[in-house]
Amino acid sequence: MTSAEIHTTIHAMGNNARQAAYALGLLSAGEKNSILRAMAAAVRGNTDKIVAANSLDLATATEKGLNAAMIDRLRLDATRLEAIAAGIEQVASLPDPCGEVLAETTRPNGMRIRQVRVPIGVIAIIYESRPNVTSDAAVLCLKSGNATILRGGSEAIHSNKVLAEVLQTGGEIAGLPAHAIQLIPFTDRESVAVLAGMDRFVDLIIPRGGKGLIETVVSLARMPVIKHYDGICHTYIDKAADPAMAVRVSVNAKTQKPGVCNALETLLIHQSVAASMLPILAAAFRKKNVELRGCEKTLAILPDVVPATEEDWSTEYLDNILSIKVVDSLEDAIRHINHYGSHHTDCIISADAKAAETFLRSVDSACVFHNVSSRLADGEEFGFGAEIGISTDKLHARGPMGLRELTSYQYRVSGDGVIK
Amino acid sequence: MTSAEIHTTIHAMGNNARQAAYALGLLSAGEKNSILRAMAAAVRGNTDKIVAANSLDLATATEKGLNAAMIDRLRLDATRLEAIAAGIEQVASLPDPCGEVLAETTRPNGMRIRQVRVPIGVIAIIYESRPNVTSDAAVLCLKSGNATILRGGSEAIHSNKVLAEVLQTGGEIAGLPAHAIQLIPFTDRESVAVLAGMDRFVDLIIPRGGKGLIETVVSLARMPVIKHYDGICHTYIDKAADPAMAVRVSVNAKTQKPGVCNALETLLIHQSVAASMLPILAAAFRKKNVELRGCEKTLAILPDVVPATEEDWSTEYLDNILSIKVVDSLEDAIRHINHYGSHHTDCIISADAKAAETFLRSVDSACVFHNVSSRLADGEEFGFGAEIGISTDKLHARGPMGLRELTSYQYRVSGDGVIK
Repeated sequence: MTSAEIHTTIHAMGNNARQAAYALGLLSAGEKNSILRAMAAAVRGNTDKIVAANSLDLATATEKGLNAAMIDRLRLDATRLEAIAAGIEQVASLPDPCGEVLAETTRPNGMRIRQVRVPIGVIAIIYESRPNVTSDAAVLCLKSGNATILRGGSEAIHSNKVLAEVLQTGGEIAGLPAHAIQLIPFTDRESVAVLAGMDRFVDLIIPRGGKGLIETVVSLARMPVIKHYDGICHTYIDKAADPAMAVRVSVNAKTQKPGVCNALETLLIHQSVAASMLPILAAAFRKKNVELRGCEKTLAILPDVVPATEEDWSTEYLDNILSIKVVDSLEDAIRHINHYGSHHTDCIISADAKAAETFLRSVDSACVFHNVSSRLADGEEFGFGAEIGISTDKLHARGPMGLRELTSYQYRVSGDGVIK
Repeated sequence: MTSAEIHTTIHAMGNNARQAAYALGLLSAGEKNSILRAMAAAVRGNTDKIVAANSLDLATATEKGLNAAMIDRLRLDATRLEAIAAGIEQVASLPDPCGEVLAETTRPNGMRIRQVRVPIGVIAIIYESRPNVTSDAAVLCLKSGNATILRGGSEAIHSNKVLAEVLQTGGEIAGLPAHAIQLIPFTDRESVAVLAGMDRFVDLIIPRGGKGLIETVVSLARMPVIKHYDGICHTYIDKAADPAMAVRVSVNAKTQKPGVCNALETLLIHQSVAASMLPILAAAFRKKNVELRGCEKTLAILPDVVPATEEDWSTEYLDNILSIKVVDSLEDAIRHINHYGSHHTDCIISADAKAAETFLRSVDSACVFHNVSSRLADGEEFGFGAEIGISTDKLHARGPMGLRELTSYQYRVSGDGVIK
């Protein structure tokens, strides 16, 4: 594939996506839901075809010597495809965010202004490995009225191609506009660059993957990017913390699923309760096989803990490792979090309502929690019904992103010949 | 100034702005309003000093041979400074957007979730020539709780420096945190590049100026940019339009202030009313000295009109020029607008409510108007009380931007030891 061919193909996809977006914006909730149900049926009806394509990706992965966990993430079987189909039906059952009137006012000159929620238009999703993202992303974008251009990784290219085709073709039977769901057939880096430069046709890019991928997209993109950077989440145990709650919440935050962005990475504890509580906390964490790394004051209380380095405070372990720091005050904890954290989710454990309010107002993170485990920072837990990710950006969408966060708005104004 | 010095200076400003933003986020509405009133007083109290600095910029402009209109835009005198001071007081009188609870819910596990409006943090404004932007931008950002880094053009550098210093120093008397308002003392291009790369300290960049400036910032920025691109605004005269209203509204849209982004640039008219209405419209526009450029069908009705070229349909004249196109249908008008327009503000004149609704739902623009002049697309006219610009973006802020559009939100969650 030459560079010119990549450009031509991706630009044509962009233009087609824009036309599809205009048609999608006019569909009713009922029409979109019928399309989604037809897509779920198509996934079920094409199980063998999808599994066959997936087996090509699995064979390549085995040849390349990918580890068992990575190969498992790639795998699609009848059970997983049934889960994908059921997931599509679940999205069909959610309320349609579009058409909602966000504000309405009549001005003294008679102008009636309605601020109405509308689709964004064309959303590009750039992701790595897991083929189920193909369906998740396309389906959430469709429900919110957007056309999607998908660009998956090379490991899952055969699975992604067939899945995208099955979704588009299956949806068309129920009225899905042509080109509403498109997958870029190239997996080279140049296709990302072309996509990221195409601001005429793409309104938003969401990269789903590691920091390297996000950094690349950010440096290339001419349109808005919603980023899902890492989660260096903190739990601060205040001097007024209930000890049992502190143990229960922080152990849950660290160990319930250590490999995810809302897991605890650094525990902060007020100096006045460090001596009494750290030994209990350490015992609880060690029971769950968590490696502890501590500051000097922690080491004075827990001598057998690994000394933490400066790097630990800004590391997202995504593993059974926890750094611990003794802080002088609530303000010291807030300063540490704002400096070293990733502004994702941070928690205070305290029975002191005033301290909690200060923490919530002063920590500059998408989610600030009082007596709640950071693992609850999640679209499902927040009641969104679906989640496209957790934004670490402050513009447009911050924190868990559901269907509403995939929409824009438009001012629709009417009058009786109003002039200035 | 060496490259290293520029980097060091601007990075230090970024770090200082971040610290100022934390302090600003904790100020009450009353505290911010007192600061704003102190800033207005400082502008009044330093009129002579500001006028003296401005005279240096005026002298340079005269030396460089800038035209009279450009020199007039640069000028600050006692009257204009009084208007700036009064503008600051007006912003003090507006409601504070921060702290508003956007949504509140309690989940079955007892988690109470509040989505609270908070400042964005640090906003950089890059602008050209007019020194009053220094005050406008700083004041609106401050009212919404944000720290600002200003980077003005070389023509107004002396005025900008003194104005920014007067605002910061004047505000500090009433409790403005240090470094809340900072002006970059360099006007070279490298300072824009350094600022645009500093995503750790700057949450948002708003370029205010021509297309070239915006394009430069978009290509360099690693953080979100809110763009105020051009306004290629249309008025479509439907077959069901009231002729008198069509003339009144379209003449107002074109001629009330032709040099601004919400002025009319292309008139579309339904073929079935073109023969009867175009002569009346042409007479009305010519009475206002508007040059008309028409499509072939227009020329058949108005033979003395200049033929329009393909380029005319995508040109923002900002002048007494109007392109006219006869369209076959409502759908044809919508297609033309979505293809050639800039998605700013587009209007339909029609007595047919169904046609109007189709137009409003199908035109992909920030503002879609029915029987209202496009000149009404404006934050003041919308009742926002203040306007930082009109966004042609779809993410975060679309259309007129007021104080609310300078805010983000944060999820504040409390519970009684909720775990997953």
